[in-house]
Amino acid sequence: MKTYLDCYPCLLCQALSAARIAGASDKQQHQILVETMDQLRSLPADATPLRVVEAIHRLVRSKSRNADPYLRAKRNATKHALALLPRLRNRIHAATDPLGTAAHIAIAGNVIDLGAAEIDELETSLDQVLEQPVGIDGITAFHKALAEADSILYLADNAGETVFDRVLIENLSRPVTYAVKAGPIINDATREDALAAGLGAVAEIIDNDSDAPGTPLARCSAEFRKRFDRADLIVAKGQANYETLRESQRPIFFLLQAKCSVIARDLGVKTGSTVLKASKGTL
Amino acid sequence: MKTYLDCYPCLLCQALSAARIAGASDKQQHQILVETMDQLRSLPADATPLRVVEAIHRLVRSKSRNADPYLRAKRNATKHALALLPRLRNRIHAATDPLGTAAHIAIAGNVIDLGAAEIDELETSLDQVLEQPVGIDGITAFHKALAEADSILYLADNAGETVFDRVLIENLSRPVTYAVKAGPIINDATREDALAAGLGAVAEIIDNDSDAPGTPLARCSAEFRKRFDRADLIVAKGQANYETLRESQRPIFFLLQAKCSVIARDLGVKTGSTVLKASKGTL
Repeated sequence: MKTYLDCYPCLLCQALSAARIAGASDKQQHQILVETMDQLRSLPADATPLRVVEAIHRLVRSKSRNADPYLRAKRNATKHALALLPRLRNRIHAATDPLGTAAHIAIAGNVIDLGAAEIDELETSLDQVLEQPVGIDGITAFHKALAEADSILYLADNAGETVFDRVLIENLSRPVTYAVKAGPIINDATREDALAAGLGAVAEIIDNDSDAPGTPLARCSAEFRKRFDRADLIVAKGQANYETLRESQRPIFFLLQAKCSVIARDLGVKTGSTVLKASKGTL
Repeated sequence: MKTYLDCYPCLLCQALSAARIAGASDKQQHQILVETMDQLRSLPADATPLRVVEAIHRLVRSKSRNADPYLRAKRNATKHALALLPRLRNRIHAATDPLGTAAHIAIAGNVIDLGAAEIDELETSLDQVLEQPVGIDGITAFHKALAEADSILYLADNAGETVFDRVLIENLSRPVTYAVKAGPIINDATREDALAAGLGAVAEIIDNDSDAPGTPLARCSAEFRKRFDRADLIVAKGQANYETLRESQRPIFFLLQAKCSVIARDLGVKTGSTVLKASKGTL
């Protein structure tokens, strides 16, 4: 996926937001914006938005001398999501299609802003997501693919969302390998975040040996690629995993919210839509 | 008002949007973004956002060789607003406080996106704006100031909004001078737009001899400044007039929606709030 002109203002927004979260001074924030603009003005034609995102966050970490700017946000998100866990499980117990509801809840974990401290507020957000029509609903294909799979590789996205993944994994009834990032990038889950969300009890946790957003296979370890190539079924959470794996011929189900207009256009849905989409390799 | 770091992504957004409205090619759009970033990276410390906005729109007009990119949008907005005019007048006839309602409607003209073609859709937007609580409600001071004024200088904002201004002017019961831009800048009203909206029937139309956004007095004609300095009462519409005149000691009432977070913070209201605010010179 190429970097569209629409990405430029958005990337600048992300740079400023990340700089502030990292506690950068006003001067550092300005430097980070200027350097981001320098990158944008001399962008190679094949540069993907995620490579720019990665470079921005490296710049922010280095300028602000903060190796993990989202550490607190990640811990908070996990704490809030864990408080919601019993209610998530209750919803699935009460559902006529537990797997479908669990998949929908896992997508909701990609939508809800887990910054809210009030559990009732979080549950209201969850209600809103679950009531919203799904943009692409591949649940029938997912049911079918799952019936034929012996094991599952699950590619994580953000910390906190991990708890929603755990609820889906509890309902997959198959051995699951849960793949996280090898180091801090934005608020993406690392091993520490996955363990804090209780994933250790329901899955084998591995990392992909990369701290880039998404799953850029060429930059992951050979060991991870072997797992990826041999997986019966892959669940990939979030936009960044979609961006990096949308051309893959492997059997992948993408669970995400189309948060930006460029991705939404690529998927053929409205911005903000929730998506459960089978990859080309599944069909 | 200085250019905050929050303005950077927003200015880039505006550049891209303006480039597309002007019909710029993909290559021209890219050039416009790169040149906008060059301006932002070497911004003088005292550069206001409006000076950058002005430079961006000059750049867009020049690169796209389109002297008035918003011409069609302005004409459409005026047409749609004129279709709504009888309903606007009916609302005022039915109101217990006709002047307050007229002022509120004039602010609504700054809020509503007049791109919608359906008149019922426009009226629904109007209902929403009129029902929304006003962020700063200076209507009592406005009543009082009006009672003491013999004539009014009214500083216009966008084309289309002009029709909503006309409704307020019809209820001011004082001679009004309606000041527009001397040339095309964004979708700001020019003499042609004011005439098309029927302002000629209710006010003397003048221009400020400038095609900059807002009312930067130092760049307006001496003749306009004389009018400004001698006015009993000034009504100034929209953010750009507020940005350029917020420090003025003259008796000004600002009618606007705080569309951006920087202006909203300056006014002490939430982004999106409607505002009827007396200047320091009025109090």
